[in-house]
Amino acid sequence: MKIYEMKIAPNPRRVRIFLSEKNISDVEFVELDVQNGENLTDEFKAKNPLKKVPVLELDDGQCISETVAICRYFEEVYPETPLMGVTPLEKAQIEMWQRWVEFYFMIPTGMCFQHSSGYFKDRMNPVKEWGEECRQQIFKFMKILNEHLEGNTYLLGESFCIADITAFCAMGFNKVNRITISDEYPHLARWYALVSARPSSKA
Amino acid sequence: MKIYEMKIAPNPRRVRIFLSEKNISDVEFVELDVQNGENLTDEFKAKNPLKKVPVLELDDGQCISETVAICRYFEEVYPETPLMGVTPLEKAQIEMWQRWVEFYFMIPTGMCFQHSSGYFKDRMNPVKEWGEECRQQIFKFMKILNEHLEGNTYLLGESFCIADITAFCAMGFNKVNRITISDEYPHLARWYALVSARPSSKA
Repeated sequence: MKIYEMKIAPNPRRVRIFLSEKNISDVEFVELDVQNGENLTDEFKAKNPLKKVPVLELDDGQCISETVAICRYFEEVYPETPLMGVTPLEKAQIEMWQRWVEFYFMIPTGMCFQHSSGYFKDRMNPVKEWGEECRQQIFKFMKILNEHLEGNTYLLGESFCIADITAFCAMGFNKVNRITISDEYPHLARWYALVSARPSSKA
Repeated sequence: MKIYEMKIAPNPRRVRIFLSEKNISDVEFVELDVQNGENLTDEFKAKNPLKKVPVLELDDGQCISETVAICRYFEEVYPETPLMGVTPLEKAQIEMWQRWVEFYFMIPTGMCFQHSSGYFKDRMNPVKEWGEECRQQIFKFMKILNEHLEGNTYLLGESFCIADITAFCAMGFNKVNRITISDEYPHLARWYALVSARPSSKA
């Protein structure tokens, strides 16, 4: 199995942490220079028509795109150390948090960066006012996270799960937006230090 | 079980179609007037801190928000007529398409509407230029869908799945953006007619 990625990007990092937590190591990583368009070739487009990383290529050549779809594949094939829940209720609650974190934190984080910095201006139209709006959404969600983490070790209570990985990578990536965890958010800071101390955070 | 929803909104419609396809009927629906803020009360915020519909309330009072998390719960509890895949590869491929449709079609559809029309301007800042950008993304993805559906009955081939439901509801909701399927997209039109003919489309 191969994973096409760009090491500094937040979505490939989510997959690497997920694999590390599950002790899956039989995967080869192929680095693409996304900023310089190595993901825009016809060869890569055949693997993912949306031209994004990460992409998982199975040994028979079949490709799976999208971070959470790749994680789902590994969770199903290697159910040990579950990170997406076991019972129907756990699976649904983790998916709920996972989506909250994606829609209200991870996606605004990426859009704030792209629309404020013009990083991908060769392939999209940055809208500065929208970038600013996303920045406000990020602060709003950090407040929600901080309040929730006052009474919870991890997002879903005592067990670390995929939603923690997504929130951790989104929080870390916010350095490109010059957003860090201020003293206003002590519970978020406690959780961030706890996740940073897991060996998987270095993956 | 109860589902809090607003019947004309696209996300609650996704859940109703999902339940109809699985022949699940022991759910009570509670209509909220979201435009007039019935979802902004403290009582509803206790069910979903993000204040969105739909929300599933279980008989013991536990609540699950987020369309796909609600669908996941039902898929796990009632595995008959699977709509999210059975094998690891199917599950991953359906999740991949589901996310493509959400990120590049459903979300731009909602944002185009909100940012162009000012529908929720009492609770967000519409950015007209971003609404226009979303409109372009919608057309781009309709082209991708049309090309993909040339060789596929449904998004994942012969089997109808949750990604079809999401794409169908996004396409239908685009009437608020005055976007319909033009003659340029015959394969998309064929698929849309096919899904419309399923009894679940009236749910």
